[in-house]
Formats: sequence, structure tokens, C-alpha cells
Amino acid sequence: MATLQLASWAINLTYANLTTGVLTAANKSFYNWAGCAIGGYAFQSAPQIALNTTLSLFSGPPTSSILGANGSISLGFADAQTAALVNGIASHVDDYDDTHLETIIHPAGPVASALLAVAEANGPVSGQDFLTAFVAGVEAECKLGLSVSPEHYDVGWHITSTTGSVGTAIAVGKLLGLDTTHMQHAIGIASTQVVGMQEFFGSDTKSFHIGRAAQGGMLAALLAKNGYTSSLQALEAKYGWLHVVSTRENATADVKSVQLRVNPEVLILTGKTSPQTGLEGKFSIYHAAAVGLLYGEATPSQFTDAVVKNSIVINMRNKVNVTNDDSVPRASAHLTLTFSDGSSVEKYVEHAKGSIENPLTDAELEKKFMEQVGLAIGEARAERANGVFKNVQNMEDVSKIQGMF
Amino acid sequence: MATLQLASWAINLTYANLTTGVLTAANKSFYNWAGCAIGGYAFQSAPQIALNTTLSLFSGPPTSSILGANGSISLGFADAQTAALVNGIASHVDDYDDTHLETIIHPAGPVASALLAVAEANGPVSGQDFLTAFVAGVEAECKLGLSVSPEHYDVGWHITSTTGSVGTAIAVGKLLGLDTTHMQHAIGIASTQVVGMQEFFGSDTKSFHIGRAAQGGMLAALLAKNGYTSSLQALEAKYGWLHVVSTRENATADVKSVQLRVNPEVLILTGKTSPQTGLEGKFSIYHAAAVGLLYGEATPSQFTDAVVKNSIVINMRNKVNVTNDDSVPRASAHLTLTFSDGSSVEKYVEHAKGSIENPLTDAELEKKFMEQVGLAIGEARAERANGVFKNVQNMEDVSKIQGMF
Repeated sequence: MATLQLASWAINLTYANLTTGVLTAANKSFYNWAGCAIGGYAFQSAPQIALNTTLSLFSGPPTSSILGANGSISLGFADAQTAALVNGIASHVDDYDDTHLETIIHPAGPVASALLAVAEANGPVSGQDFLTAFVAGVEAECKLGLSVSPEHYDVGWHITSTTGSVGTAIAVGKLLGLDTTHMQHAIGIASTQVVGMQEFFGSDTKSFHIGRAAQGGMLAALLAKNGYTSSLQALEAKYGWLHVVSTRENATADVKSVQLRVNPEVLILTGKTSPQTGLEGKFSIYHAAAVGLLYGEATPSQFTDAVVKNSIVINMRNKVNVTNDDSVPRASAHLTLTFSDGSSVEKYVEHAKGSIENPLTDAELEKKFMEQVGLAIGEARAERANGVFKNVQNMEDVSKIQGMF
Repeated sequence: MATLQLASWAINLTYANLTTGVLTAANKSFYNWAGCAIGGYAFQSAPQIALNTTLSLFSGPPTSSILGANGSISLGFADAQTAALVNGIASHVDDYDDTHLETIIHPAGPVASALLAVAEANGPVSGQDFLTAFVAGVEAECKLGLSVSPEHYDVGWHITSTTGSVGTAIAVGKLLGLDTTHMQHAIGIASTQVVGMQEFFGSDTKSFHIGRAAQGGMLAALLAKNGYTSSLQALEAKYGWLHVVSTRENATADVKSVQLRVNPEVLILTGKTSPQTGLEGKFSIYHAAAVGLLYGEATPSQFTDAVVKNSIVINMRNKVNVTNDDSVPRASAHLTLTFSDGSSVEKYVEHAKGSIENPLTDAELEKKFMEQVGLAIGEARAERANGVFKNVQNMEDVSKIQGMF
């Protein structure tokens, strides 16, 4: 379920979710990446050899910047795959880029190199969408890295590029608007491309790893978008990424049980243990808890017939136990996740999302509106409807509302 | 030393070395690959999605055939990287291609997909050169596979693509005329791109492995040709391919000792144990045996100052022991290689190469001539000199020979 969770988390990440600290760090990281790429291209031969090799034989339409080319700061252009390769190499060739100390991952390189190239090729892309995708990719790299560190590194892999192709696929996939299933396929195609071993440190091939991971992740997202299939459990399967590339991995620590302690009213209203339809799912605290854990949210998309009948969801649902406790308020819940390795995580939800004490932020409310309305009348009309309904207090004639979107 | 040996073996393989059986098998394998690619493209969506994805964004000059495109048999064209990807996918998508039973490698796919694309982009390439490069790549794949089988497969890797990128780099590198050092770099860049896990069997991603291995190997050879550096011991190093991708590898079984039993005349003429110059090396049976084992040949290239002082060569030279035996003829030798795992290999050279009983073939003699002359007066003049000197019996006026090349 690691693949589904990662895909779902990335899809659901919004700009509104990013705290000020995260935004500042993401901006700085991207800025630093650009400086490394421009400086790296100008003063090192590796990115220049890579560009010349590619340009002379393969390169397509010049849609994307080669940072640092044509002089020390000004830009050259190549196709998006070439730009991802060359900028990836250039950004890492000086070993002067950002570092996630816990895993020794240099996270910006693969993700930014591919993301900028695709954004330029596909545009327009707002800074907010760009940074949200960037954060999704970087976060995925580091989480994947943590799940296999330090054993993965000890085996001899170069962790920046091995996690980089997956992080890149997630970032580019998010920019391309993939849904959860297509994102799972993108993760699969990216994860089967394991680039980078430590033997190559000290040669041009170390920085090649970053460029190649950027290319591989980008290609994965694009192929998945166009319907190329892969595995839906690429990370956690027996012969998938986590098991093949490391002697230890903890991303698949099975959930053994989910303990909920709630007000008795909860089971009276939502006590269905085995819902059979999406509608029944809404009256099952078991289903709600399961999709919350698996998808990271509980919107109408998680209460369809298909999701209710999904075998992974059913499996998780069956692990949920609910106990009544009169002392727990009706909009609160105590949750304990126990893993099969014996470890556990506790969470106390004092006020349910949407309660007076924990209201939706403006951004959350807008996301909710857009999801509901977009599915119904299409994205373009939904955008107009969003503008109309959000500003009803300023409207001159509310009776004309139907014609406005 | 596995990387050096593999590179050196591949560089030195000539068309004349290919037996009739090997040639027939190579021709059939290539023919079968083309049938698989044409049929695979026409009847499966995976290669078509890959082509459309690439064409729409990246593809450069249409130099190379997309087999099966534009109808069921006729050809379409794309740049060489795109052609390698798409033909690689198409040739494997039906799982109907050739199989090396001992390793379960489908060897033709990656190698042929890249080789044809590069040959078309660079041409002209003779059928003999093409098949020699193809055999070098396929042989490298299977040898690499044998050195890590079955443990590599048991870990979860898809052995066709993991060995395929290296075999492809060797085939393309041979077509591009790389020397030994550049070929070692090509092997390095290819080996750090480990594509393919068994989790993806049953999805479009299985055939993607073959196409991606073809692309990665091709890119490795091209980068190396242009001076991109890698490791010279990519395969055998502690954090290199063999150790990282398998729990067992036997390509680096250390040579413990080399026992030679020869006529006493040998040590009288060539008894230098520690030669210091290339010229001294010619009078060292220890050096000759060492380079024979390491490079697979003993031409002037192995008797330079640099090779005599090479630390890998010195190390091997120090393992050579020579004993005198009056009963051994002067042009014969008994050799026993003992490995550190206790195993050993014996070889009896009854007649030295170049003796009346074991003369150089015409092809070997021509190769020898071209190597010597090419280094001296350049390849183009050497070709002309070759034509002149080989046909001296038909010459009208031998006194004019100097002006003929």
C-alpha cells in the first residue's frame, strides 16, 4: 500500500497545505539549484559533453532551458529530455547542491531539472503549482530514502538518483494532473529505473546519475499519462523497489490493527462494517478510517462503489476496531495504529475537520468546491462558478447567476 | 579486472573470429528480433504509446527506423534514442523473442534495438561489422548474466535489461570504434543504469525495460566516445555492478596463481620478472602471460611503457610462476590458472600462434598489419597501404610503391 499512499498523498497535496517554512525552504532550494546548474555548466566539461552528445544526434524541439549555456549566465534551449539530463548533471557536478542530512540525498537536482523542463515545454504553469509539485517530489525522495536508509546506501547505491527518479515522476506527474491510478503507474515506471552506484563517485558518471534520474522520472510520468501501464504496488511488492534495492525497508511495515475510541453516537450513525456501495461507505466509520489512512483524505472520490470494493481498502477496513467511550466528545476521536513489527502511532483528533473549532481554510473550501463542481460540469465552467459563488456578496443581481458560468 | 577484460575482449573480437555456427546464430537472432519488433509494434499498444509520447515532445532528426510503424510492415522513422526505445519495447512486448536458457536472458532485444538505430544514424556500416558488434554485445550480456545467476534473478531483477544496458554499450561502442579505455568508461556508464524488476512482469513496463536498456547502453557508448568519464572497474569494484546487484558474483574470482611449464629456452630469452619499459616487457614471459590473460592478446599495444607499469598488470605478473621442462617443445606451453576459490583451468598450447603448424589466418594477419600501420601513418593511409602490400604479386612496378598510399 506504500505506492497507493504515496500517490494519493502527492495528488492531494495543495499549495494551501504548504506552511510558510516549507514554502521558504522550497523557494530557496529551487533558487540554489539554479545557481548550481548555471555555475556547473559554465565551469565543468561533463554537462557540456552531455549536451553536445545529445544535440548532435537526438535532440528535438528546443522547448526548455539549458541553464548556463551560451555564456556564463544566459540561456540555451533544447528539448525537455535533453534539458533534464544536462541541467541535472550541471546542478550536481560541483557537489555543491542541497543535502538532506539524514539520508545524504541531494533532493532538488532530479526533481527541479525535470520539472522546469516540463513546465517550459507545456506552460503556462503558476509558481504556486510549480512549487507544490516540487515539494511533492522532494518530500517523496526523502521519505523513500528514509524508508531504506542507511542499508540502501551501504549496499553501494547512490541514493540521490535511486530515489530521484521516483520523486521526479511524482513531481512531473503532479504537474501533469495525473489521477491516483496513473500516478501509481508513473511511480512504477520510475522505480524500475534504478540509476546510480557509489563506485562512480569521483568521475563524470556521478552527476550523470542525477540527470538520468530526472530523465527517467519525467519519461515515467509522461508514459503513465498516456496510458502506459505498470504495477500498482511497485514499491512494496516482493520483487518491487523496496525489497530489491535494500536489505531493509520500513515503508511496508504492515498495519496490524487500527484502534478507534469514539463517542457511542459514532457507531449508531456509521456502524456498517462491510459496506457494499459508495453510499453505504459513507455510513461506515470503518471505511472512513481506512480511506483516511490509505488516501490521506475522505472526499467523494473515496466513497465510490469502486473504492468500497477495492481489495486493499477492504483489507484495511477489516483491521479497524471501534470502542465506545462516553467521555469522548462527538466530534473527537482517539486513534492508535499498531504495526506488525510491534511499533505504534497515536493520534488524538480533538475537533473534526469542519467543526467550528477546526474549520476548513479558504483554500481547503475552494479545493472541496472545485472537486465537487469540476466533476459535475467540467474544470473550465467550475473555475467560473468558483469565481461567481465565492463573491456572491458583491453580486448585483443574484437572479442572473445561472448565466455566469 | 573484469571490466578491462570484457572491454579488451570486445575490442579485439573480429569478424574473422566468428565461427560459422556463431554467424548463423547471430543472423537468425537478428532476423527473429526484427520479426518480433514489427509484429509487436503492429499489434500492441505499448510501443505505440511510447512512440507517441516521445514524438510529441522530444524526438529529434528521423534517422532511424521504427519497425512496424506506418502499417504492419513498412517503416517509420525517428531519432536513434526514440527508435531504440520503441523497437526495444516492440521486440519484447509479445515475449516471443530469443532466450538464453541458462540465464533466461532475451539477448537480442536491447543490443539489436540500439545497434540498428545507431547504424542507421551514422552509416555506412557493413553487415560484417554490424554482426561482429552484435555478437560482442550478446556475448557480454550472457557472460555477465552467468556471472550473477541465478541469485541476481532471485533478488527480483529482470536480467534481460540489467545485463542489456551493458551489452548494448559494448555493441554500440564497438560499432563506434572505441578503444579499450573508452570502452571501459562506456561499460561504467551503462552499468550504473540498472533497469528492470520482476514486479513489472504482466504490465507494459516489462517491455519498457528492454527499450530503456537499449537507450541507456547507447547513451553510455556515445558519452564515453565524447570523453565522458566513468570508472575503469565498474563491474568488479566493491560498490560496482556485480556486488551491488547480486548476492553472488563469480566474475571477480581472483586469480591466485598462473603456472607455466615451458622449454628452458623460454626463460633464457624472456626471463625478466620485473620489466620497467615496454621494450623490456617483450623479454618477459611473465609480462606476456599477464597481458595475454588480461587483454586477450599480445600486440604492440600491450608492450608500451604504460602497460608495463600498469598496477593491474604488475599484480597479475607477480602471480606468474614458470618452471622448466625439457620435454616441452620450444613453441609449446602448459598453463594452469588457479583461482582463490580453489578452482583451476588448464590449457595446453601445442603450437604457438605464428608457428608453421598454427599460422595466422588471413584475417588475423590483416588485423596485425592494420594495427601496426594504422598507428604509424593513420587509418586512411593504412587502408591504402593494406591494399597495396597485400597484392604485391599483381603489381606492375614495385618501385612506385611509395606513391601508392
